[in-house]
Amino acid sequence: MSANVTVLGLGSMGTALAGAFLSAGHRTTVWNRTPGKAGALVAKGAAEALDPAAAVTASELVVVCLATYGSVHEVLEPVADGLAGRTLVNLTSGTPEEARETAAWAAAHGAEYLDGGIMTTPPGIGNPEFMLLYSGERAVFDVRRPVLAALGDPVHLGADAGLASLYDTALLGLMWSTLTGWLHGAALVGADGGEKATAFTEVADRWMKAVGFFMNTYAPQVDAGTYPGDDATLDVHAAAIEHLVHASEARGIASGLPEIFRDLTRRGIEAGHGRDSWARLVELVREDGRK
Amino acid sequence: MSANVTVLGLGSMGTALAGAFLSAGHRTTVWNRTPGKAGALVAKGAAEALDPAAAVTASELVVVCLATYGSVHEVLEPVADGLAGRTLVNLTSGTPEEARETAAWAAAHGAEYLDGGIMTTPPGIGNPEFMLLYSGERAVFDVRRPVLAALGDPVHLGADAGLASLYDTALLGLMWSTLTGWLHGAALVGADGGEKATAFTEVADRWMKAVGFFMNTYAPQVDAGTYPGDDATLDVHAAAIEHLVHASEARGIASGLPEIFRDLTRRGIEAGHGRDSWARLVELVREDGRK
Repeated sequence: MSANVTVLGLGSMGTALAGAFLSAGHRTTVWNRTPGKAGALVAKGAAEALDPAAAVTASELVVVCLATYGSVHEVLEPVADGLAGRTLVNLTSGTPEEARETAAWAAAHGAEYLDGGIMTTPPGIGNPEFMLLYSGERAVFDVRRPVLAALGDPVHLGADAGLASLYDTALLGLMWSTLTGWLHGAALVGADGGEKATAFTEVADRWMKAVGFFMNTYAPQVDAGTYPGDDATLDVHAAAIEHLVHASEARGIASGLPEIFRDLTRRGIEAGHGRDSWARLVELVREDGRK
Repeated sequence: MSANVTVLGLGSMGTALAGAFLSAGHRTTVWNRTPGKAGALVAKGAAEALDPAAAVTASELVVVCLATYGSVHEVLEPVADGLAGRTLVNLTSGTPEEARETAAWAAAHGAEYLDGGIMTTPPGIGNPEFMLLYSGERAVFDVRRPVLAALGDPVHLGADAGLASLYDTALLGLMWSTLTGWLHGAALVGADGGEKATAFTEVADRWMKAVGFFMNTYAPQVDAGTYPGDDATLDVHAAAIEHLVHASEARGIASGLPEIFRDLTRRGIEAGHGRDSWARLVELVREDGRK
């Protein structure tokens, strides 16, 4: 099961990736533009390549994790011929458009291509609890999956190379939404009598299971385009949102979030959807930008 | 274990509460201002009281679930003397201030008082997976807990009667944040090739476990007032937020959320906290309203 794998880019994430490959027993070649980053990895058994050409030709599986897609092309263009017949796995953060362009570029040079999104921070690499999202040809993913599993749980999203980036961005948005709402809540409960954020979070943890249940109730509604408000209607939400707005104002807590909820529900109700579920708001979220 | 319990207010939530008490075998008395709401409950064994005075004196435990605290006082003021020696559990939605005022009012009339927040919709009542939050004297809660457990998992927050309402509001804010971020994400992944909301939600479900891990990492930081950015710094978040802003704009997806994240992180970085964690933003959320 031991494979040859190359990691290009030894920032904190690239270093974690290479370390996880080494821990899983893979023959790991590393390269970084500025020298001096490979020491600890070499001590763990990595081979340090002196240039990208040597790094690319050392392994069938070439993983790249650089700062930008611009850097990816800068590093790989001069060694493109060496990629033919290999699999390039690009874990650099970027846009779906950049991922699709790079997939086409790799195909033009005879390389297989997977684009990826890493859904954890460097300390989480190697933990199978965390997901790494991949998009590109399913057959390519299936072949490389056993080696990629060293990094975390590999999840294949689809053939469109842009999907991993799109999901990555959407999931980070969900994270920032949740964390900002959580900070707002912690500030709110802490305002009156110094209630601890840890006490609030203990209850919030349990509550998030119910919220997950709502997400799973609403997802088929979004897909079907019908939004029955049989659990809680926009009218009911709107009344409760007023409590949040006023409780926040009274305590000097302001994140901007309650005003967004109020605006969205008001517009949903004005459009005649007061008896529909929260999921109806997806139509406003989609339409907004088209104005 | 069978107890006498009264439910005042037979809206959809009050009806669910009374139904759960009946299912748990409690002798349940119900009353509603407008008649004709009690039929199904009476068929299940409830006694219908003809007026609030009869309803209040029928049970040691009096649960009230009306539209507003104004309604609560309208209904209970004329029968306040009958409350002496009983426990009033107020599950009406309102503000912490209203809860505290009503607790003082109940005490002045010799009644024990718990204020509550129901963390589910009517169909969820009776399911021990869902929480009902209570605040007020711990000893009162402990005595009533076995009967209240018929409604869902009873969680006691503290002696301050306003806490249940404060938590309720904060947790709903967390829910709206999460659901709006989720809708934004579903719209985003659906924009390019019609990726289904259900497919996105399957991945989002798993991702929310990581988000919960971040919440639990950041909660002690908020309590300590120190925000080490050793997993991901505001600088790192800010770069990724730009991807969300641009990916959303390019697809005509607009909820207002990405702009909030961008604004908060920018202000955090400008204040010199670029190397701190997301939790640092709680200080901006707290300060905003004080300007």
